[in-house]
Amino acid sequence: MINVTIWNENVHEQDPGKLGDIMRGIYPDGIHGYLKKALAADDLFIRTATLDMPGQGLPDDVLNTTDVLLWWGHAAHAKVDDALVDRIQERVRGGMGLIVLHSGHMSKIFRRMMGTSCCLLWREVAEKERVWCIDPSHPIAKGIPSTFVIPHTEMYGERFDIPQDGHIVFMSWYEGGNVFRSGVAFQRDMGRIFYFAPGHETFPIYHEEYVQKIIANAIRWAAPVCEIAERKCTHEVDSTEKVYSENPLANVDTSALHKTLA
Amino acid sequence: MINVTIWNENVHEQDPGKLGDIMRGIYPDGIHGYLKKALAADDLFIRTATLDMPGQGLPDDVLNTTDVLLWWGHAAHAKVDDALVDRIQERVRGGMGLIVLHSGHMSKIFRRMMGTSCCLLWREVAEKERVWCIDPSHPIAKGIPSTFVIPHTEMYGERFDIPQDGHIVFMSWYEGGNVFRSGVAFQRDMGRIFYFAPGHETFPIYHEEYVQKIIANAIRWAAPVCEIAERKCTHEVDSTEKVYSENPLANVDTSALHKTLA
Amino acid sequence: MINVTIWNENVHEQDPGKLGDIMRGIYPDGIHGYLKKALAADDLFIRTATLDMPGQGLPDDVLNTTDVLLWWGHAAHAKVDDALVDRIQERVRGGMGLIVLHSGHMSKIFRRMMGTSCCLLWREVAEKERVWCIDPSHPIAKGIPSTFVIPHTEMYGERFDIPQDGHIVFMSWYEGGNVFRSGVAFQRDMGRIFYFAPGHETFPIYHEEYVQKIIANAIRWAAPVCEIAERKCTHEVDSTEKVYSENPLANVDTSALHKTLA
Amino acid sequence: MINVTIWNENVHEQDPGKLGDIMRGIYPDGIHGYLKKALAADDLFIRTATLDMPGQGLPDDVLNTTDVLLWWGHAAHAKVDDALVDRIQERVRGGMGLIVLHSGHMSKIFRRMMGTSCCLLWREVAEKERVWCIDPSHPIAKGIPSTFVIPHTEMYGERFDIPQDGHIVFMSWYEGGNVFRSGVAFQRDMGRIFYFAPGHETFPIYHEEYVQKIIANAIRWAAPVCEIAERKCTHEVDSTEKVYSENPLANVDTSALHKTLA
Repeated sequence: MINVTIWNENVHEQDPGKLGDIMRGIYPDGIHGYLKKALAADDLFIRTATLDMPGQGLPDDVLNTTDVLLWWGHAAHAKVDDALVDRIQERVRGGMGLIVLHSGHMSKIFRRMMGTSCCLLWREVAEKERVWCIDPSHPIAKGIPSTFVIPHTEMYGERFDIPQDGHIVFMSWYEGGNVFRSGVAFQRDMGRIFYFAPGHETFPIYHEEYVQKIIANAIRWAAPVCEIAERKCTHEVDSTEKVYSENPLANVDTSALHKTLA
Repeated sequence: MINVTIWNENVHEQDPGKLGDIMRGIYPDGIHGYLKKALAADDLFIRTATLDMPGQGLPDDVLNTTDVLLWWGHAAHAKVDDALVDRIQERVRGGMGLIVLHSGHMSKIFRRMMGTSCCLLWREVAEKERVWCIDPSHPIAKGIPSTFVIPHTEMYGERFDIPQDGHIVFMSWYEGGNVFRSGVAFQRDMGRIFYFAPGHETFPIYHEEYVQKIIANAIRWAAPVCEIAERKCTHEVDSTEKVYSENPLANVDTSALHKTLA
Repeated sequence: MINVTIWNENVHEQDPGKLGDIMRGIYPDGIHGYLKKALAADDLFIRTATLDMPGQGLPDDVLNTTDVLLWWGHAAHAKVDDALVDRIQERVRGGMGLIVLHSGHMSKIFRRMMGTSCCLLWREVAEKERVWCIDPSHPIAKGIPSTFVIPHTEMYGERFDIPQDGHIVFMSWYEGGNVFRSGVAFQRDMGRIFYFAPGHETFPIYHEEYVQKIIANAIRWAAPVCEIAERKCTHEVDSTEKVYSENPLANVDTSALHKTLA
Repeated sequence: MINVTIWNENVHEQDPGKLGDIMRGIYPDGIHGYLKKALAADDLFIRTATLDMPGQGLPDDVLNTTDVLLWWGHAAHAKVDDALVDRIQERVRGGMGLIVLHSGHMSKIFRRMMGTSCCLLWREVAEKERVWCIDPSHPIAKGIPSTFVIPHTEMYGERFDIPQDGHIVFMSWYEGGNVFRSGVAFQRDMGRIFYFAPGHETFPIYHEEYVQKIIANAIRWAAPVCEIAERKCTHEVDSTEKVYSENPLANVDTSALHKTLA
């Protein structure tokens, strides 16, 4: 059983005006609620979490029992506490999977894990997006055809500022002339990370069969393979092999050097 | 002319006891002062900066005129202001080179740029280190033999938690049985980063000819190739190619969705 | 059920003199025969094949029913027919797993798949090798400790001429001062390839528990995920999206350009 | 001074019919002759070579004095002698640069260097191609805008079967709905390789300013940095560090094991 938590900032869904109406029309229970139903499966225990919940939705008892975290954020990236981002980053390093959706490319947690700015070009004119499967042998591509269409999308275009070790699983073509690495898989420490671009809030993109299947595949791929534990520097006091060199500082206590200043 | 700034936390050098005596014996002007002299060359304008200086040594007028930043830190990583780390990271993304030395693997700036924990094994028994050049065609390896020795070193061993896109230029063998990716080159956004492990404070490692040459090579390699500018997401309002799809939300003003909540 | 074929050139085993005696002492049924027994498991159907068999051990009915091919070769690399190497390469591209053992780094098939020379340093003085697990989260590292020893080995040392996209799972330390990327995983087209260095013929290295476990893990990791099929360029005659540009050569039959000259 | 050799199969140019007329209209001196003029510069010594010349254009005295080889081939890949491909591959491994143009993706030499099948989708309807610069900091991208258009092109589309360590410098968008990694840089042994897709024979693509500039940049980037020498396995007879382990086969002459069977 994989413990999945779907985090959503849940901001646009609560807009009192027309924009909120559009979103509520597409996702009556919010993006998180919709995805929870769409991804339901026997091997997944799925919870949802939102920014307005206690602990911003991810108090210790939730985060520390999450195997794979999905992240949808857009307008409220800055509102996520740095301390929470620290805790999520620590857990991803330890082995928790992280699936970053759409505008989450600018989320604190994704930029933290990447180190880069994660900048890109964007345009919102409801143009057509055509997704190409670049590596049909990747677990995330299982059951996905070589190409499929998202009828109306927000354009995300290159140059996309991500590190070069991303395994490109999907690339997108946009009607308006752009291209994008739209599905990219990373490893950081023991944790696996998948970024997937399609998912603009005002079009029913998460209703698309293949979009759902890709996210479902990504969850299984990103599930931890080892027990999740904090990464630490380890003092290997005794060497595994005999050291023959004489220590010129053998009579000096250097332990003070290794104390961290607060 | 490349503008180089050598940053040193300059903590161990000021220790009033025996450890400080050892360091002052090896580096009378501090590691930063020693490297400044050792790296002096016609194409380099070298400044030094230390943690105890105003703005922690890197106020705007220094950082924003730096092309390549060298970083030596150990005990005082936690004392470096997060706001300074933000500014350095922004500038590396824009194209500034960053050369991280020895215990800088746990510095805030290196861990920020990598996203990973940068953890490793370590041991301080003055054992021998043998460095191997893994890619003689890399600019940082120019003039470096296939292998050379550091007589006494602190051991840094695998597993080293760094991303997999590091171009391995050097690997190290340690007498006590460990191995390490000891010289690794990265690109993040427009900036180039080189991590180089040798450089323990209580042994005269920066006196070594090849260690100096590697750092000198790395500076030239990491120098910016474009004008350094902040990375930004760009709203490409007008598509380069004609969009034929009809916008189902053509009559809706969605601009409010793109406002960031403070 | 994974169909595994263990190919061995089986040359040293047949040496009539003392060297053959040594090998027969360690591997009475040859390296292939020994590995077949050591790797036996319910999910594996294992066959062996040797150079002196018809079709050099890999006629169509064997190769085309193999999911994962293990390759041990040393003295007789040049004797393997180029046409057979073509067929193996084609099948790896299609998705067959390939596990290249020890001196197989200079086999025709490994050099074909890599493109590089696969050269390295070597020395045979029975020194100790210490293997380090570089990525404990990789499937091939499952159940392997962070380090283990091979008491007597042939040294393989860097610079190892392989492409940079190898996922390093294991690195080795040698008593005589060398380091080596000793377990490296690649993908080529749809096929997965794992190179594993330990396995010198005159020491009982395949008797080692962890060496066996690594090979066993690698077989499962390299098993095909899609149906194995020849990779082909595909003429996508009709575009998926409408082309508006006028074809200046619309009235010219260019099909002759696309005929391959024999 | 960089010694450049532009190799062209020069087949379509000699077609006696309408297709040949079209090509001769665009490239009166052949693609090789056109590029020689277009790339002329003080730091380049440029020669041309064609399949119908003695030694298929690359006898020892030409190949062994070439620093960077450009390759244009299409219909006659199969006619290139395997022995010549062996010699080119050996020289690229030693450090010669290789720039593979357009349909050269299926050339023997490119497939040799990659190991993969290098297959792709294709279509020839004169559609528009829009090239995006993915890494403005790469030397090959110097002076190239973020995007530019090729008015009429042959489409090359993903899935493109190349290894994952290609540094993507350019990606292309095609009017008909496809995307492609159209400019990709590799290193193999000491040699640098750049594949660049634009260059279909029946459209004047090499007349384009930015296409020329990219190829010109690639030549400088791919120029050898070390003296070109054959890659060899090296017997490091004496270890750099003392081996303490006792050799159980110390009294056995194992040298016969290291003799290669012809």
